[in-house]
Amino acid sequence: MKICEIINVGTEILLGDIVNTDAQYISEKLASIGLTVYYQTVVGDNPERLKNALNIAIDRSDIVILSGGLGPTPDDLTKEICAGVMGCEMYLHTQSLERIKAYFALKNYDMPESNIKQAMMPKGAEILENDNGTAPGCAITKGDKCVVILPGPPRELKPMMDKATERILMRYSDSVLVSEFVHFIGLGESSLAEQASDLLELENPTVAPYAKDGECLLRITAKAKNKAEAGKLIAPVCEEIKKRFNKYIYSSDGTNLEQSVVELLKKNNMTVALAESCTGGLLAKRITDVSGASNVFHCGVVSYENNVKIKLLSVSKADIEEYTEVSEAVAKQMAENVRKIFGDNIGVGITGYAGPETEGYIYIAVSRDKKTEVELLKTGRNDRAYNRYIASNHALNMIRKAVIGSDNFE
Amino acid sequence: MKICEIINVGTEILLGDIVNTDAQYISEKLASIGLTVYYQTVVGDNPERLKNALNIAIDRSDIVILSGGLGPTPDDLTKEICAGVMGCEMYLHTQSLERIKAYFALKNYDMPESNIKQAMMPKGAEILENDNGTAPGCAITKGDKCVVILPGPPRELKPMMDKATERILMRYSDSVLVSEFVHFIGLGESSLAEQASDLLELENPTVAPYAKDGECLLRITAKAKNKAEAGKLIAPVCEEIKKRFNKYIYSSDGTNLEQSVVELLKKNNMTVALAESCTGGLLAKRITDVSGASNVFHCGVVSYENNVKIKLLSVSKADIEEYTEVSEAVAKQMAENVRKIFGDNIGVGITGYAGPETEGYIYIAVSRDKKTEVELLKTGRNDRAYNRYIASNHALNMIRKAVIGSDNFE
Repeated sequence: MKICEIINVGTEILLGDIVNTDAQYISEKLASIGLTVYYQTVVGDNPERLKNALNIAIDRSDIVILSGGLGPTPDDLTKEICAGVMGCEMYLHTQSLERIKAYFALKNYDMPESNIKQAMMPKGAEILENDNGTAPGCAITKGDKCVVILPGPPRELKPMMDKATERILMRYSDSVLVSEFVHFIGLGESSLAEQASDLLELENPTVAPYAKDGECLLRITAKAKNKAEAGKLIAPVCEEIKKRFNKYIYSSDGTNLEQSVVELLKKNNMTVALAESCTGGLLAKRITDVSGASNVFHCGVVSYENNVKIKLLSVSKADIEEYTEVSEAVAKQMAENVRKIFGDNIGVGITGYAGPETEGYIYIAVSRDKKTEVELLKTGRNDRAYNRYIASNHALNMIRKAVIGSDNFE
Repeated sequence: MKICEIINVGTEILLGDIVNTDAQYISEKLASIGLTVYYQTVVGDNPERLKNALNIAIDRSDIVILSGGLGPTPDDLTKEICAGVMGCEMYLHTQSLERIKAYFALKNYDMPESNIKQAMMPKGAEILENDNGTAPGCAITKGDKCVVILPGPPRELKPMMDKATERILMRYSDSVLVSEFVHFIGLGESSLAEQASDLLELENPTVAPYAKDGECLLRITAKAKNKAEAGKLIAPVCEEIKKRFNKYIYSSDGTNLEQSVVELLKKNNMTVALAESCTGGLLAKRITDVSGASNVFHCGVVSYENNVKIKLLSVSKADIEEYTEVSEAVAKQMAENVRKIFGDNIGVGITGYAGPETEGYIYIAVSRDKKTEVELLKTGRNDRAYNRYIASNHALNMIRKAVIGSDNFE
């Protein structure tokens, strides 16, 4: 088994100015080809400390991947330090210089003298061209150690890490890890884990539950010689999960909740109209986040005041007075009336308290044909953003159920 | 100068399953009290490698801050390893055990036997109570070395890091770093940097420009003995910035754009009505993200189809046919009509193409009294989420200008 280690170079990470997303991307990519990471280290733009970190890493790991410190300024020293530790001289790599010049020409600038430094490379290194910036990366291999050097900015790093994986790192891998995700809504993580407990004990693929706001998911991960083999290990487990939890699964192909609801409406030639109070447009926003939402969504009303509910949505004034605007009766009328007014198949009404003064207490109504379902959501938290998000999730799930005709919509 | 080092313990970070936000939070906090971080290390839930990382850290740094590995399972070993390296025995800290029991009692569960482990603490350590979970943290001080141990989950870590800073880490600090942020809208980063070039050369406080989607900001950071002294250094620079850029500044107290627009409307006793097409409710969502938005906002319409624009907002059908729905004429009518229909002071109309098939091409109109301004926003990108966000930012800035009466609203 080959052991990898990551070193990210950048004082801005040590100052807490930025989150180290480079480390995550590199780690994830290495895991996907079955390589194991034992350490991640962050060090500033300081030659002594970088050298120290690199020596420790080379001593205890087979492959060291560095990011950052490839810029044109004097304190960018990652390549030079690596070359020194690995015993390589530096030379001017003319193809890289040409690429850098061309990059500037494209932007109608002359290349500053200082950028020549970016084309200086360790002798014997494999060059990794940068398609999104000026700094090329490289890989130095000596004996059974390999040092890969990548630029720091994520939009340069990610494609170059992909390139390095394919061209260099795959040589050290004898397997791939492939993961698939099944997304659930309307089922708690603990119920899910309980009902899937036999699956959670599998060894290849492994099955692991995760919870996130208002939904949960199962990750199925297989280790195999190649993607096709991994796919074969995953498929039957995925099938079993689908069989067991069918009505709670909204996606198993990576689409998110709003995408899958829009897809479902489209497939069924149905449209939805929205009347939102405490979610204030969040549900409309999430539905229209999806490109092509105009096929299934034409109108939303954010009725943030009783008069608007009465005037625009024909909610009964008497009912508001009797039950208050946060009531089953008002949610129901909002859903039914918005559907009728705009001639859509499904209508949604949301009214409630989102906080922060109170805990989330939100009525959500979904109307289809002659049937209207109203649910009361109590979140137990006074986090306004959370409560609004959870309410919109809940509404999306109710739309989903209304379309597929499950539960009370059967 | 005291040198700090951070060790985050968690295999899930090494697998790339999560981004290491703990390291950022800890780093930022340390920087704020003038302590310097030279290294961050991530290591998995493995006793040998954790011990190795800890030994290296203690050798080269004065203060080591660890997070993660404080759970009740057998592979959670951070406290035990630290105690071993620092030469402390473990003992049962009864107050912590009582707190953990009380935590479970509050949730109506019996405490599982395994959680007793979380109350075992290194002898002589200062205990850091956990107000958001079961695992207490602690600080072990021996000679001139200090090891602080914190839980991994961010919602437990952050408040405990604050506590550790106040109670323990401040002892090692002889200065504080205080930052203030001035937020700009409607002014590009390069223009800002150019017009503030003299300020960017200051040494204490330092002034640095940052850009983020659709806006930019200046960070003013002072180093001083205490907060009050730092404040005195910052104040005159902040004043100068306000004088120089007044009309582009929407906030200098940390409030975001939507908060400052809601505040501004409230202060002026004004209300706003929204008619959104391509932003699909995002603007309403952002305004209602602000607690108390109901004082200034009563109604939004998401008119995602021409018929809705005609029926609900009385947009001229002939104009839609002549100019198409993405036109100055339609945006203008949306803004004017939504304002009149709902009797608000300000009306907003947004219609355009958000992508991803095309680059962002979006008309934004803001109407106040007899005046309506229409602007065409071309984003040069086909990123739907970006285009929608930028359009909502642009609209918020136009509302702001309409309220304060700047530019054409003068």
